[in-house]
Amino acid sequence: MASSLLSRQLAVCLQHNLRMGAPAGCRYVSKTATKTMVEFEYDAPSMKTEVPGPRSKELAKQLGEIQNVGAVHFFCNYEESRGNYLVDADGNRMLDLYTQISSIPIGYNHPSLMKAMANPNNLSTFVNRPALGILPPENFPDKLIESLLSVAPTGMTRVQTMSCGSCSNENAFKAMFIWYKLKERGMRLPSEEESTSCMINQSPGSPNLSILSFMGAFHGRTMGCLATTHSKVIHKLDVPSFDWPVAPFPRLRYPLEEFARENAQEEDRCLEEVEDLIVKWRQKGKPVAGIVIEPIQAEGGDNHASPDFFLKLRSIARKHGCAFHVDEVQTGCGTTGKFWAHEHWGSDDPADVVSFSKKMLTGGYFYRDELQADKPYRIFNTWMGEPSKNVFLSEVLNVIRREKLLEEVTRSGKALLQGLYELQSQHPHLLSRARGQGTFCAIDLRDENTRNDVIQRTRNKGVLLGGCGDRTIRFRPALVFKEYHAHQFLNIFSDVLRDYK
Amino acid sequence: MASSLLSRQLAVCLQHNLRMGAPAGCRYVSKTATKTMVEFEYDAPSMKTEVPGPRSKELAKQLGEIQNVGAVHFFCNYEESRGNYLVDADGNRMLDLYTQISSIPIGYNHPSLMKAMANPNNLSTFVNRPALGILPPENFPDKLIESLLSVAPTGMTRVQTMSCGSCSNENAFKAMFIWYKLKERGMRLPSEEESTSCMINQSPGSPNLSILSFMGAFHGRTMGCLATTHSKVIHKLDVPSFDWPVAPFPRLRYPLEEFARENAQEEDRCLEEVEDLIVKWRQKGKPVAGIVIEPIQAEGGDNHASPDFFLKLRSIARKHGCAFHVDEVQTGCGTTGKFWAHEHWGSDDPADVVSFSKKMLTGGYFYRDELQADKPYRIFNTWMGEPSKNVFLSEVLNVIRREKLLEEVTRSGKALLQGLYELQSQHPHLLSRARGQGTFCAIDLRDENTRNDVIQRTRNKGVLLGGCGDRTIRFRPALVFKEYHAHQFLNIFSDVLRDYK
Repeated sequence: MASSLLSRQLAVCLQHNLRMGAPAGCRYVSKTATKTMVEFEYDAPSMKTEVPGPRSKELAKQLGEIQNVGAVHFFCNYEESRGNYLVDADGNRMLDLYTQISSIPIGYNHPSLMKAMANPNNLSTFVNRPALGILPPENFPDKLIESLLSVAPTGMTRVQTMSCGSCSNENAFKAMFIWYKLKERGMRLPSEEESTSCMINQSPGSPNLSILSFMGAFHGRTMGCLATTHSKVIHKLDVPSFDWPVAPFPRLRYPLEEFARENAQEEDRCLEEVEDLIVKWRQKGKPVAGIVIEPIQAEGGDNHASPDFFLKLRSIARKHGCAFHVDEVQTGCGTTGKFWAHEHWGSDDPADVVSFSKKMLTGGYFYRDELQADKPYRIFNTWMGEPSKNVFLSEVLNVIRREKLLEEVTRSGKALLQGLYELQSQHPHLLSRARGQGTFCAIDLRDENTRNDVIQRTRNKGVLLGGCGDRTIRFRPALVFKEYHAHQFLNIFSDVLRDYK
Repeated sequence: MASSLLSRQLAVCLQHNLRMGAPAGCRYVSKTATKTMVEFEYDAPSMKTEVPGPRSKELAKQLGEIQNVGAVHFFCNYEESRGNYLVDADGNRMLDLYTQISSIPIGYNHPSLMKAMANPNNLSTFVNRPALGILPPENFPDKLIESLLSVAPTGMTRVQTMSCGSCSNENAFKAMFIWYKLKERGMRLPSEEESTSCMINQSPGSPNLSILSFMGAFHGRTMGCLATTHSKVIHKLDVPSFDWPVAPFPRLRYPLEEFARENAQEEDRCLEEVEDLIVKWRQKGKPVAGIVIEPIQAEGGDNHASPDFFLKLRSIARKHGCAFHVDEVQTGCGTTGKFWAHEHWGSDDPADVVSFSKKMLTGGYFYRDELQADKPYRIFNTWMGEPSKNVFLSEVLNVIRREKLLEEVTRSGKALLQGLYELQSQHPHLLSRARGQGTFCAIDLRDENTRNDVIQRTRNKGVLLGGCGDRTIRFRPALVFKEYHAHQFLNIFSDVLRDYK
C-alpha cells in the first residue's frame, strides 16, 4: 500500500514538475539504481532579463515594507529549480556555484529528498517537532546512527544536534568551558560562591575564560560566536564583545606547493603568536579554554593553511590544556573531496570538537567523550535540532555514497581549479591566487569593485557566484556539480573576463 | 489532479494512522468545516507500564552511548500520538499538559498540518531550504503577510524570522545595540577607531553596552541570551558572561486581586531598582541599550506582574532612551487567552521588540520601524528562519481562527484554575499560589522533592506535567485543550494528591 502510494505520488510530483518547468532545455539523465524515478536537470543557463529582473524588483519593494532587504539578490522559484540550476522569479535559469551560501548538498529538488518527503512514514516526523532533549522519538538513536554517526570524525562517537551553525558553535564553546572548569575543579562540587555569583553574571561562577580564534575567522553571529568572528566590520560593529585573544591566520602564497618554504615560515610565525597569546591571556586571568578554527577560512577570504599547521596547532592546544574545536560548518559534507576537510590532515586524533551545519541540513557538533557535560540541562534548549533534518541527511548521505559524489567532487574540482589557473595566466592583471580543495575553490580579483562587478556580469550571463573576503570569489557548488558544469561555468566566466581587457 | 491526490493521500494517511493507534479508546469528533477529513482524538489516558517503561529505558541506554541523556524523560511514539495525548514507546498514552516544553500549538498530528505536508505545492518548500536573507522564495512576502504579519503586535509592521528562540533574542539584542549606537552617532559615520577596534573585540567598536534583565528571567542559553537569563545555576555555571544589570522581578502574592495593595508596593520597589540600575550602569560606562522581560516569567517559576508594572517599565525605558523588548517565546501564540500575553496590558504601544518561537514554530521578532538596522548584513545568517515553518504557522493560525481557540483557551483555562483553587483549599499544606492566565497556569508544591514526586506519580497515572522554578508545576497544554481535558486532569491530580494526606 505504502509503496504504491509512493509511486503514484512521485508520478504526480514529477508530472507537476514537468508541467511547470521542464519542457524547454531539459535533458533526461538516468544515473541511479532507483527504477521508478526519472531524474532530470536542465542542460544550460537560460536568461530572459537582467538580474534582478522586474518581478524580483517588485517583490523586493513588497518585502522591504516588512524587513531590511538590502542583502536580497533576487527572488527564486524553487519549484522550477533543478540540480545545479536555480530559477528566479523572472524565469531566469542560472548555474548555481553559490548554492544558498554553501548550504544545498545535492542540488535543488533532488528526487531522493522529494521521495523522503512523500513517504507517509515520515509525515509525523515533519509535523510533530519534539523537545529532543527530554522526549526524543523512538527511532532517534537509530536515525542518529544511520545519519550523523555514519560520518563521525575519527575518535568521536558522540554528537549533539542543534538547529543552526551559530547554536552549534555557541554550545560547543559552552561544552569546552564546562570541560575546562570540571578539570580545574576536580572532584570538588561548585562552591556556594560560584553558584551565587553566576546568577548575576559575576566571577567565579561566570568565569573569565576565553576562546582563542583567528583574524579572518567566521564562526557565526550570536554573541559568543561573534566574539570569535573577525572577518568583516559590518558583522561586529556596535555589538558588545568579550576580551578574547585573536591570533593571526597564516597569509600564504598560492599555489601552496610552489611557496612551501616561505609559507612554512609564515605558519610558524602564527603558531608562535598563538602560544604567546595563550600565555598572555593566562597571565591576564582569562585563560584560554579552547581554540576554534576553520580548516579553510571561508567568509574571511578562502584562506588555506597546511596540514602541518593544523597538526602543530592541535599539539599546542593539548600542551596548554585547551580544547581544540574545528568548525566545519562550511567545509564539511564532502565539498573538499573528503567528507570533512580535516581528513586532509591525515590525523587519527584531529580535534576534540567538530561542529557542522549548512549542507549537513542539521546543525550540531561531534565531540570526544571527555567533552560531555557532567550533568543534564547544561547543554540544552527546547528543540535541540530537528528529527526531520536527520531524515533528509540520511538521504543525502545515501546519495553521496551511491553516486560516489566525493570522487565526483574531486574530479570536477580539479577541472574547475585547472580552468582557474588557465584564466589566471591569461588575465594576470585581473586574477590571482587561484586556490582550492575539491570544488571548494576561490580566486582573487584585483580589487573589491572589480570583484563585485564580475560577479554581477557573470550572473547576467547565467552563473551565480558568491564573494568572500575583500576581493575574492568563492566557488561553492553542490556535490552534484560535474566536470560538465565546471566547463560550462569556465566558458561563461572566460567571456566575462574578456571584457576587462 | 492535486486535490484528488490530496484526498487519496489523506485517506491513506488516516487508514495508516487508524491501523496503528486508534481502535481502542478513540472517539470521533467532527468539528471543522473540512469535508474530506475525519479528525479523532483519544478519549482518555491509558497506561501499561510505569514511565519510563522498559522500552524507553532500553532506548535511553542506546542513546546514552551517543549523548548525555540525563534529561530524557522517556521516548515517544509520535505517529500514534493525537491531539492532547502523547503516546510513549511502551504504548502508554498520556494527557499532555507540557506539550514539548510548551511548543506544540494545536496538538499532535493535527489534520490541518498533515494536509499541509501532503500538499504537493508545498513539497519544494520543505526540500529546498533557502538562504532567506539573499534569495527568498517568490511567495515569501505573501507568506509573511498571511502568517506572521496577520498577528503582528500593535504598532509593529516589521518582522525578522530566525530559527529558534535563542537566535531570536540574540538578534533582537543586536538590533537594540545597533539602534542605540545609531542614535548616539547621529549622522556621523563609524570612525576608523570604531572599525578597527571592533575587529579585535575592543571598545569603542565593540561598545560597553548592556541589556537590563530580571532575576528569575529566562531568555535562552546562547551567550548573549544567557547573560539575561537568571533562573537556575545549572544554566549559567562555568560560562563566561557580561557585566549587565539584573533587576528584581516582583514577588507577588496570589490571587493577585486579593493582594493588590501590597503587590503594587512590591512592584514599585522593583521599578525603583530598575531606574537605579540604569543610572548606575550609565555611570559605570556600560549604558543600558535595552530592557528585556517576559510578560510572565516561565522557566523562573511562573511569576506574574500587573499590567501597571509593565506599562510603567515601558515608560522608564522610554525616559532613559532604552529599547523595550518583550520576550513572548513561551507566552505567545494564544496560550494566555489573547494571542500575545502583552495584549492583557491594554497598551497601543506595548514594546519596541517582541520576540517569539516555540508554538509559533518559527523563531523571530517583530520590531518597530526605528529598530531596523541601517544596513544589510548587520542582522543576518545563512538561513534566517525557514519558509516551511511559515507554511505550518499559516495552518495553525487558520485553525486558531476557525475553531475560535482563544475562546477555548479562556474557557478551559478558567476550569483549570478554578480546579486548582479548589485543590489548593483542600490541600493547604501541600499546594499554594495557584495562578494563571488562560491555560498558562501554575501551582506551587511545598518543596522541590514533593513537586518532583507529584509530577512523577501524576505521569504514572497518565498525565504529563512540567516543573519550573524551585517547586512549581507549570501547565502548558496545547490550544486544543478543552474543559473536558481540564476535568480529566483535575480528577487524576486529585487522586494523586490524596496520597499525600
